[in-house]
Amino acid sequence: MRKVKVAIVGASGYTGVELMRILAGHPQVELVMVTSRQYAGQAVAAVFPSLRGIVALSFSDNRPAAAAAAAEVIFTALPHKAAIEVVAELAEVGRKVIDLSADYRFSDLRLYEQWYQPHTRPELLARAVYGLPELFRREIVSAQVIGNPGCYPTSVILPLAPILKAGLAVSGSTIVVDAKSGTSGAGRGLGLGSLYCEVNESFRPYKAGNHRHQPEMVEQLGRAAGVRPELLFVPHLLPVNRGILSSIYLELARPASPEEISGLLAEAYADEPFVRLLPAGELPALSAVKGSNFCDIGWVLSGERRLILFSAIDNLVKGAAGQAVQNLNLLCGLPETAGLATVALAP
Amino acid sequence: MRKVKVAIVGASGYTGVELMRILAGHPQVELVMVTSRQYAGQAVAAVFPSLRGIVALSFSDNRPAAAAAAAEVIFTALPHKAAIEVVAELAEVGRKVIDLSADYRFSDLRLYEQWYQPHTRPELLARAVYGLPELFRREIVSAQVIGNPGCYPTSVILPLAPILKAGLAVSGSTIVVDAKSGTSGAGRGLGLGSLYCEVNESFRPYKAGNHRHQPEMVEQLGRAAGVRPELLFVPHLLPVNRGILSSIYLELARPASPEEISGLLAEAYADEPFVRLLPAGELPALSAVKGSNFCDIGWVLSGERRLILFSAIDNLVKGAAGQAVQNLNLLCGLPETAGLATVALAP
Amino acid sequence: MRKVKVAIVGASGYTGVELMRILAGHPQVELVMVTSRQYAGQAVAAVFPSLRGIVALSFSDNRPAAAAAAAEVIFTALPHKAAIEVVAELAEVGRKVIDLSADYRFSDLRLYEQWYQPHTRPELLARAVYGLPELFRREIVSAQVIGNPGCYPTSVILPLAPILKAGLAVSGSTIVVDAKSGTSGAGRGLGLGSLYCEVNESFRPYKAGNHRHQPEMVEQLGRAAGVRPELLFVPHLLPVNRGILSSIYLELARPASPEEISGLLAEAYADEPFVRLLPAGELPALSAVKGSNFCDIGWVLSGERRLILFSAIDNLVKGAAGQAVQNLNLLCGLPETAGLATVALAP
Amino acid sequence: MRKVKVAIVGASGYTGVELMRILAGHPQVELVMVTSRQYAGQAVAAVFPSLRGIVALSFSDNRPAAAAAAAEVIFTALPHKAAIEVVAELAEVGRKVIDLSADYRFSDLRLYEQWYQPHTRPELLARAVYGLPELFRREIVSAQVIGNPGCYPTSVILPLAPILKAGLAVSGSTIVVDAKSGTSGAGRGLGLGSLYCEVNESFRPYKAGNHRHQPEMVEQLGRAAGVRPELLFVPHLLPVNRGILSSIYLELARPASPEEISGLLAEAYADEPFVRLLPAGELPALSAVKGSNFCDIGWVLSGERRLILFSAIDNLVKGAAGQAVQNLNLLCGLPETAGLATVALAP
Repeated sequence: MRKVKVAIVGASGYTGVELMRILAGHPQVELVMVTSRQYAGQAVAAVFPSLRGIVALSFSDNRPAAAAAAAEVIFTALPHKAAIEVVAELAEVGRKVIDLSADYRFSDLRLYEQWYQPHTRPELLARAVYGLPELFRREIVSAQVIGNPGCYPTSVILPLAPILKAGLAVSGSTIVVDAKSGTSGAGRGLGLGSLYCEVNESFRPYKAGNHRHQPEMVEQLGRAAGVRPELLFVPHLLPVNRGILSSIYLELARPASPEEISGLLAEAYADEPFVRLLPAGELPALSAVKGSNFCDIGWVLSGERRLILFSAIDNLVKGAAGQAVQNLNLLCGLPETAGLATVALAP
Repeated sequence: MRKVKVAIVGASGYTGVELMRILAGHPQVELVMVTSRQYAGQAVAAVFPSLRGIVALSFSDNRPAAAAAAAEVIFTALPHKAAIEVVAELAEVGRKVIDLSADYRFSDLRLYEQWYQPHTRPELLARAVYGLPELFRREIVSAQVIGNPGCYPTSVILPLAPILKAGLAVSGSTIVVDAKSGTSGAGRGLGLGSLYCEVNESFRPYKAGNHRHQPEMVEQLGRAAGVRPELLFVPHLLPVNRGILSSIYLELARPASPEEISGLLAEAYADEPFVRLLPAGELPALSAVKGSNFCDIGWVLSGERRLILFSAIDNLVKGAAGQAVQNLNLLCGLPETAGLATVALAP
Repeated sequence: MRKVKVAIVGASGYTGVELMRILAGHPQVELVMVTSRQYAGQAVAAVFPSLRGIVALSFSDNRPAAAAAAAEVIFTALPHKAAIEVVAELAEVGRKVIDLSADYRFSDLRLYEQWYQPHTRPELLARAVYGLPELFRREIVSAQVIGNPGCYPTSVILPLAPILKAGLAVSGSTIVVDAKSGTSGAGRGLGLGSLYCEVNESFRPYKAGNHRHQPEMVEQLGRAAGVRPELLFVPHLLPVNRGILSSIYLELARPASPEEISGLLAEAYADEPFVRLLPAGELPALSAVKGSNFCDIGWVLSGERRLILFSAIDNLVKGAAGQAVQNLNLLCGLPETAGLATVALAP
Repeated sequence: MRKVKVAIVGASGYTGVELMRILAGHPQVELVMVTSRQYAGQAVAAVFPSLRGIVALSFSDNRPAAAAAAAEVIFTALPHKAAIEVVAELAEVGRKVIDLSADYRFSDLRLYEQWYQPHTRPELLARAVYGLPELFRREIVSAQVIGNPGCYPTSVILPLAPILKAGLAVSGSTIVVDAKSGTSGAGRGLGLGSLYCEVNESFRPYKAGNHRHQPEMVEQLGRAAGVRPELLFVPHLLPVNRGILSSIYLELARPASPEEISGLLAEAYADEPFVRLLPAGELPALSAVKGSNFCDIGWVLSGERRLILFSAIDNLVKGAAGQAVQNLNLLCGLPETAGLATVALAP
């Protein structure tokens, strides 16, 4: 079986090590290069002991040209801003790129520039595809550059989109999104707020109503549902390594029955391999998705006019590296689930 | 200095051991008896090694008459329903009782009976006082039976009451209360859902829109603010031992400035010893209150018409045993902060 | 490809769910039945939400005859004592059995009976094979009943055996084994000591010098090395879900160089797929093995006469279910690593 | 009541915040100054939210002269090496100093210089007193400079000293000390190894046989017992915020009965306010000491010739700040337990 040659540029963060973990079990992919400025020259196994005996590579320096020479498809797992030019350079020489930063996620240039910084490759941004397969599979298949979705947006767009598409939300009414993320979402960089003793036995909100993932959710939900919703998004930091649980509160435009809600979700996702719709009355938990590419969705109707949606994902898998591999599979014509069959590690 | 003799009936749960911890540091209280059916005859130190060298008592069997004979004030830390008759028996012989169950928290008998079970002592319930000192101090001082507030209600009523009193919330609009509690809130009883491996590295909602603390919040906020609010309360289980963080979302009836919000909170709580109002822009965290009797309150205005209130308490202290001791101090004419000066354990 | 039909008798504990997780990814195995007295009739996905969409079975009642009728190889994951007759019944009708209890681990009947209870099937015990592939692969291949090793013994025997075989330990001198296990080792049964709030933020030794895994280690090390060592084994309970780290201290009979130690270990394990020998100076960590079937081994020489060996395993994988599947592969002539390629989940 | 004026130089680490927590509850001490180069000018409450409403000070810059002018007794909580000159400067102007670094812990200058760096104030080092009150109370009372013991040494010296003094250990035989510490022991500095995701759900040994606390233990045990023991010390990193549990294995020179062991420990510590000797058969746990100044000691005899000692402390309290306050009390003629009555926070 021919294997697709892939590289990871910027592979020394938690997203990078997770990509390596997943790709190690992918039967139709060969990982040929991983790069890191910080660890250039060091063996992957020395930096990430979990990969000893699994990944035999050493880190190369961050040179896009070398990655382009070695691989057909490249994952870029760089910080936003740093990714803009690297992705463009890879695209110019014909490589397909799956970018895990925010740099190619927005359709609306001004929205991107309002929340991030000036974008030096607006024409490439305009051609990039938002890599949420359950909503945009058709475009992904033929994309050259994929903006891999943010972790919080994945957890919010999937449960909300079918409800908004059906016109069930009161127009103009605020949808409250109270989301909670494990600490790997903050990355592997050094910061006081990421220290064990600061996170453990604590819990706190941050960037309430002011987080960069909010405009991303709003834009993509707008594309999917035809109208941009009003979201109030508040993230919180959980003392767990992995996982996002989002609790989403919305007012309904008309009375809805449980059957209608479950029907809408089933219509959207019954055949999706990575969305699990929980039976009525069951609510999701992080332990059921940890390490897997699933998005679990549950819900409760409070009266006939209030709906609470709950979703659970592993932020490093369906929220980052797993979704990126799902996009790779679509891009390369491989089975969409290849390499992604890992079952959640519970307990 | 004369010391008040107190007893704890039903002292073998997490609330019981926490009462013992706090009372051990109270200069004007003597703990003369602790009871437990399960551990009767065993030394407290053998059951709770943290109290070795601190509490020299052994558990007595659960006999209210003996507690009444030994103590002036009795804490009852029994499960709801079990507390009804025990509290009544103690009150009949003239003892003051601080009940930590739900049995004497409701003013509205029907509300209690709708969410719990028939109440066999409605006349005593009618005389009982809801023990939230910041709102009902005057009544507490002369009460005989105090219904000590639930942990979630404490964390929700304190931040919300001043806003509702000021008529700032849109009447009839739903206030979303997304609350997260540490696992000690589930008690020391055996249950699959309380096992370490089920809670650790997980997070999940439970009883969404259907938790017994919701009617308690609604009733007491109604008393404090003159009108019962519409709450949608969703609790979640956090992988920490202690703490509740509540995120409260409300729509404002009119545009409000940051100064107005901080002014309302300051007017209500600036002189309160156990409420800390965070400076604008700061949000609370569990680590700052763990082990202390503080309720920390922060907030964010999203636009001029959306307010998010955040509160953090230790569910076992301000949410249970600490508040009970605060009530004891008020009941007995002691300084309200006596025994409650413990600083949060951070990290 | 023909698939081996397997069943799990007693599948509702943490070992059972872990077997299902691993077998779900095994390309040459079909799981045809799982049994549980407690959950008989319930869907596996309802009891273990992590397996929703993965395992479509419902639990059957615990009837060995039905398992024997449905499957070629049966895993028994019952408590010790309960396994004795079930294993025997399955063996009598010609099934191969991999027993995860202690009931078929001992060669020495008296030793078993001294630490457990009378054994009603001594003749079958005498024929059973201790399922540690790295030491006893040849016997495993042709066994009918395999006693799958205990979690602590696996973590201790692997690092120690090559050193003892080489005669490096001072004869008669005590080898200190200070071992630390995650809480899943205590099982999914209800017990005060397994509650989240009792384990979290704590750490403690238990059964010091008096744990049933000690005689198992001694017996198997004696078989492997020709002489029974003197062990002093002290287990401790760690606030993590998974993993055992053992620190093993021994006095050397003669001065040893680092090269000699690494040479002995390499000679024993260089070709083993599931033993990773760390480079000199590196010590193992639980995070590098969590969810994987690896045993990581590191060591330090203190002077020329003191050796400290360290090993790390996932107690549910190499310490239980993973090793059981490794034994299944050997029993059935499948590639030894089939289904066991899962990379550790880090972070 | 006159209050002793104290200052903390270098108060922005975990030891600093813990000193502030404890001193806030000390009835006979007034904290007049806290210094920090990093946070100079900022309010303590802004840096440590747990101290909001408790400590009204702002951080001053690190100027020893200012501290000497303001306070009678000064705690120095600087990194080792940095403390040498600061302590000397304070001592020269007649202040009493309790130094929490390693710089004034050693009697043997060469030992210090072998493990740390050249000492520029050997004459002051020679006059400094090792601040372990249970062993050296008489010298502490009249000291000017106190070298506050390391956290690991405190947990090891207390249980071992009475056994060694009695000549019970085989001379020249190695005593294995397998110790496990919570992560606050690594301090509040930024380091990859202190990140939440690196520590949580993991466990690992470090600096095996090569940790700087080993020579400190050996020297002080030698002073206490008359002969320097042979120790093999291996620390491990625990996923908890606080606590050290040490497991100590020694071979006995002659058979000992349980009564002899408990008698020796009782003789040494029965009247000590901060040592709790557990009843025979009980083993210590971190949860029983978290937040308190206690050292809990338990033990097991394995046969007549092997003793295992276990101790548990809170590394930030009895292992650092609490012990420092105990030394302050002794230095100033205050009751030794003043400010130190805090009960462990359990759960």
